[in-house]
Amino acid sequence: MIALRGVRGLRVEDVAAEAGVSKTLIYYHFRDRAGLVTSALDYVNDRAESYADVAAVGGAPVRELLLSLLATEFQDDTTVRENSAVWGEVRAAATFEDGLRPTLASLTERWLVDVAELIADGQDDGSIPPTVDSRAAAVRLTSLVEGLSGRWLAGLLGTAEARAHVAAALERELAGSPQG
Amino acid sequence: MIALRGVRGLRVEDVAAEAGVSKTLIYYHFRDRAGLVTSALDYVNDRAESYADVAAVGGAPVRELLLSLLATEFQDDTTVRENSAVWGEVRAAATFEDGLRPTLASLTERWLVDVAELIADGQDDGSIPPTVDSRAAAVRLTSLVEGLSGRWLAGLLGTAEARAHVAAALERELAGSPQG
Repeated sequence: MIALRGVRGLRVEDVAAEAGVSKTLIYYHFRDRAGLVTSALDYVNDRAESYADVAAVGGAPVRELLLSLLATEFQDDTTVRENSAVWGEVRAAATFEDGLRPTLASLTERWLVDVAELIADGQDDGSIPPTVDSRAAAVRLTSLVEGLSGRWLAGLLGTAEARAHVAAALERELAGSPQG
Repeated sequence: MIALRGVRGLRVEDVAAEAGVSKTLIYYHFRDRAGLVTSALDYVNDRAESYADVAAVGGAPVRELLLSLLATEFQDDTTVRENSAVWGEVRAAATFEDGLRPTLASLTERWLVDVAELIADGQDDGSIPPTVDSRAAAVRLTSLVEGLSGRWLAGLLGTAEARAHVAAALERELAGSPQG
């Protein structure tokens, strides 16, 4: 429902009706509206990790796994698009709802650390130069993915184009740092 | 009001009350809620161009002007933060409200063209290598700024950090294309 209508339009009674349960049951499980949104974000995040795992199978150099991982965010697939919409919504809503920030901060940090660790792994297997600052590159790459996602969801950018930009940015970030 | 409460929570009667005019007058001027949001986005965009112009004064190499232009998006200034919040909101809302897309598309395109033209100018004055694809680099740089803005507005990233990432990305994008 967040993917369809956004966080701000989300009403507990509509979620209850969609699930075919009482409002009381929703409140019993999720405590309040913020708990419901947080759980939705956790769910979406777990679901995204499951398709990211699939992308990461095989003995390819870490650099290629990293590209697969970031490119999985752009797929002509309802689930992927829904996940992206929910994330985008919660990010935008966090500007106005302080209650969403702790969850957003911890999930963003988890993603950042995953990407930074993959870059460090690539430095170990020799597919990524040792001069790359893994944390800083991870911040820029994930922020770029978030920026591209917004345009992709709004129909300003096609799937293939978004993926090509991710590949090009990765190429530039992992070329070895121009100035440390 | 969009910067404070978002697009989805925006009600014409609240805007009328804030402006101290009748709802009828708002409808007379802006026609409908979509017209009101579009006008707000135009206003914010004009305001952003005025501080971007200030950043672009002087005889510096175009490459430095480009950095100033992109970095102006991150300032510890209420107006800049409001502009950014309004943009972020309209981008996020465009996932759900098709009516916002034409305005979003044309303003995004205008920004893209401005950045791409500045890159081309830098290729003319020799401060940017001729191998850089100005349009593709502009898409990535502006998308990165949008992604960083979301984190900055949600308090996940400081102003100085956001500006440093813009500078680093620019360095990488303008180093000359690693693969054409």
